[in-house]
Amino acid sequence: MEQVKSYLNFTFYNPTKIIFGAKTIPQLRNLIPKESKILMTYGGGSIKKNGVYDQVKEALKKHQFLEFSGISPNPKYEHSMKAVEICKKENIDFLLAVGGGSVIDATKFISIAAKYEYEDPWDMVSKSFFGDSKYEPKAAIPIGTVITLPATASEMNAGFVLSRESTKQKYDKTHTLLYPKFSILDPETTYTLPKNQTINGAVDTFIHIIEQYATTNRNTRIPDRIAEGLLDIIISETPKALENPKDYSARANLMWSSTMALNDLIARGVEEDWAIHAIGHEITAMTGADHAKTLAAILPGLWKYKKEQKKEKLAMMAERVYGKKEGTDDEKADFTIQKTIEFFNSIGMKTTLSSVGIGKENFNEISKRINNRFTILKAPPLGENADIYAKDIIKILELCNL
Amino acid sequence: MEQVKSYLNFTFYNPTKIIFGAKTIPQLRNLIPKESKILMTYGGGSIKKNGVYDQVKEALKKHQFLEFSGISPNPKYEHSMKAVEICKKENIDFLLAVGGGSVIDATKFISIAAKYEYEDPWDMVSKSFFGDSKYEPKAAIPIGTVITLPATASEMNAGFVLSRESTKQKYDKTHTLLYPKFSILDPETTYTLPKNQTINGAVDTFIHIIEQYATTNRNTRIPDRIAEGLLDIIISETPKALENPKDYSARANLMWSSTMALNDLIARGVEEDWAIHAIGHEITAMTGADHAKTLAAILPGLWKYKKEQKKEKLAMMAERVYGKKEGTDDEKADFTIQKTIEFFNSIGMKTTLSSVGIGKENFNEISKRINNRFTILKAPPLGENADIYAKDIIKILELCNL
Repeated sequence: MEQVKSYLNFTFYNPTKIIFGAKTIPQLRNLIPKESKILMTYGGGSIKKNGVYDQVKEALKKHQFLEFSGISPNPKYEHSMKAVEICKKENIDFLLAVGGGSVIDATKFISIAAKYEYEDPWDMVSKSFFGDSKYEPKAAIPIGTVITLPATASEMNAGFVLSRESTKQKYDKTHTLLYPKFSILDPETTYTLPKNQTINGAVDTFIHIIEQYATTNRNTRIPDRIAEGLLDIIISETPKALENPKDYSARANLMWSSTMALNDLIARGVEEDWAIHAIGHEITAMTGADHAKTLAAILPGLWKYKKEQKKEKLAMMAERVYGKKEGTDDEKADFTIQKTIEFFNSIGMKTTLSSVGIGKENFNEISKRINNRFTILKAPPLGENADIYAKDIIKILELCNL
Repeated sequence: MEQVKSYLNFTFYNPTKIIFGAKTIPQLRNLIPKESKILMTYGGGSIKKNGVYDQVKEALKKHQFLEFSGISPNPKYEHSMKAVEICKKENIDFLLAVGGGSVIDATKFISIAAKYEYEDPWDMVSKSFFGDSKYEPKAAIPIGTVITLPATASEMNAGFVLSRESTKQKYDKTHTLLYPKFSILDPETTYTLPKNQTINGAVDTFIHIIEQYATTNRNTRIPDRIAEGLLDIIISETPKALENPKDYSARANLMWSSTMALNDLIARGVEEDWAIHAIGHEITAMTGADHAKTLAAILPGLWKYKKEQKKEKLAMMAERVYGKKEGTDDEKADFTIQKTIEFFNSIGMKTTLSSVGIGKENFNEISKRINNRFTILKAPPLGENADIYAKDIIKILELCNL
């Protein structure tokens, strides 16, 4: 008898407190203990231009706090270590990350690095990859966040991604200690986002959902229905936010969707994939292309290459997200691929390799870089079934649009 | 200009750890600190018949634990206070509730009552209703649960309902201290549920969702889409579980749905109603009818009476849950009412007042009991807009099926 397809056993635990709504930043003063010595972390000047910086300073005017700025997209180990020094020297006992996913990711690393007992905190990121529990974090400075760029959901999950320039390494790390204590989501902070960041955030969110949803059908109706709902929201609300950047309802729906897309809930019970992300990361490392743009360029090729494996779910998506009730599963799967490309293009996101600086001449290098993951990092092959090897990468790239 | 309809500002915080899947009860031994002195609470004998009692004892064979049984449906203050005495006398420092919502609810009360500093713990339930913070709980014994009857979601929320026999009072109470530390959801524990309990659980879950979803449309797409997904799951999976009680996939979907239906998530940002529950509770108090049956009897009358107020959402439900894309909002709302009655009837749940022991001759008494809530408890009128008074109750009952 065939094994019944159903939920993989799982644990779900997400203790981050979400404060959601317009003009909620003043609540910071009650969310952070009065006696704390805070290090506020942020990136460039955008929070100074959009007024968030002033709102935070006003909320914390009775707290003691220092600032650490200059956190970049694809945040760096080397820069983060400067904040670690400040934390130790100044006895910082609360970290407040204000900005997008990169700021929060760097701050998560800082939170465990400042409490690390051995010599090099990078070991927690690189060596723990091989399962050596000696290098697991044991303590962290508590973190709160004010998120201003909805995309990564770092504000409500326990992961971060960090790069080390000197060694050209880029790793992700997940640990229960990394859940923020609280995150403030004020949709009004996104009114002034540049158009391309709204588009990138929507596509990043969309593909986060896809990496969890468009996998083997295991009759996991709860994550499936939530994922479809979130996809439906991205499709319907993104054009509204682009048309009218101060559409509160659209901004609120997009902001909460991006958090819900990667706060563990829709991952529980299902297979996860993340092959699109893995290939996209290498392209960003090679050409500096925006993360979301690389995902949009890879998705069509990956789906075409893995259509048989993912057919049931792609057909389900055609029925429940794109409203196509008629036809075979094969036709429905093709419909989903086509409609997704059309949606991305309609909001101004290209779905071609050339748009991220890649041509046929780069295929071998991308494949080689992925192969390094297997040989040097001893990482498993990509994909939900760990069956995507370096040779498959070439075939996937050949199915992408040039 | 009309106010933009969107999310009410909210806080979402739910720190309960969920352990989900077949054969997860042995994990208890690592979930509860080794040195704990545990009081295991349960109801009648069902956990002894279905093997759950033995699984728990086996898992905790290296722990020190006592037992407290006999917790009834609609659990009682008087009985719970016996457990409070045990907790104090035996220095219990962990409570493990094994059973359905009633067991968990009583255990939640026990957890705060055993730590209460003043004379009568009932004050935390009754007097805090009037906002006197003196009577708020300040500490609680930590709780874990093994849920065997999916319905109330008490395993992942911070609320309980308790009755005091001597004063004929029944109150609900919510407090952050009441989130269980963990809850084990093993779908296999529901294989042996009596058919009527599977039906009651499904209807209870369905109407929990409705009390949050079938309210004013505020463009709250995340809770809306999740609620629709959960309704879809109840409709599709309940018949499978009734047809084949050991259908793991159906049991798993129903179990996780009932938790998700009332773990705060779909309540955040929306108006909530709970009028169906309020009227149903009075009927249970009068005739002893099952909670879920009273809800199914009241729903048609409440929806007909409040159709104008709820029309947008009832029409949305027709489109997205029952697949009716054509027609006016009014026609769609009627369709939703009709299809919901048909669904309840199809799984063996009656939707008539006579099925819960109520006839026309009882309408005045129900109305009077509701009125007592306003005059004695100073509770606000019922419904999402607090516009349902005693006189409206008569009209709602007249629109129910006899």
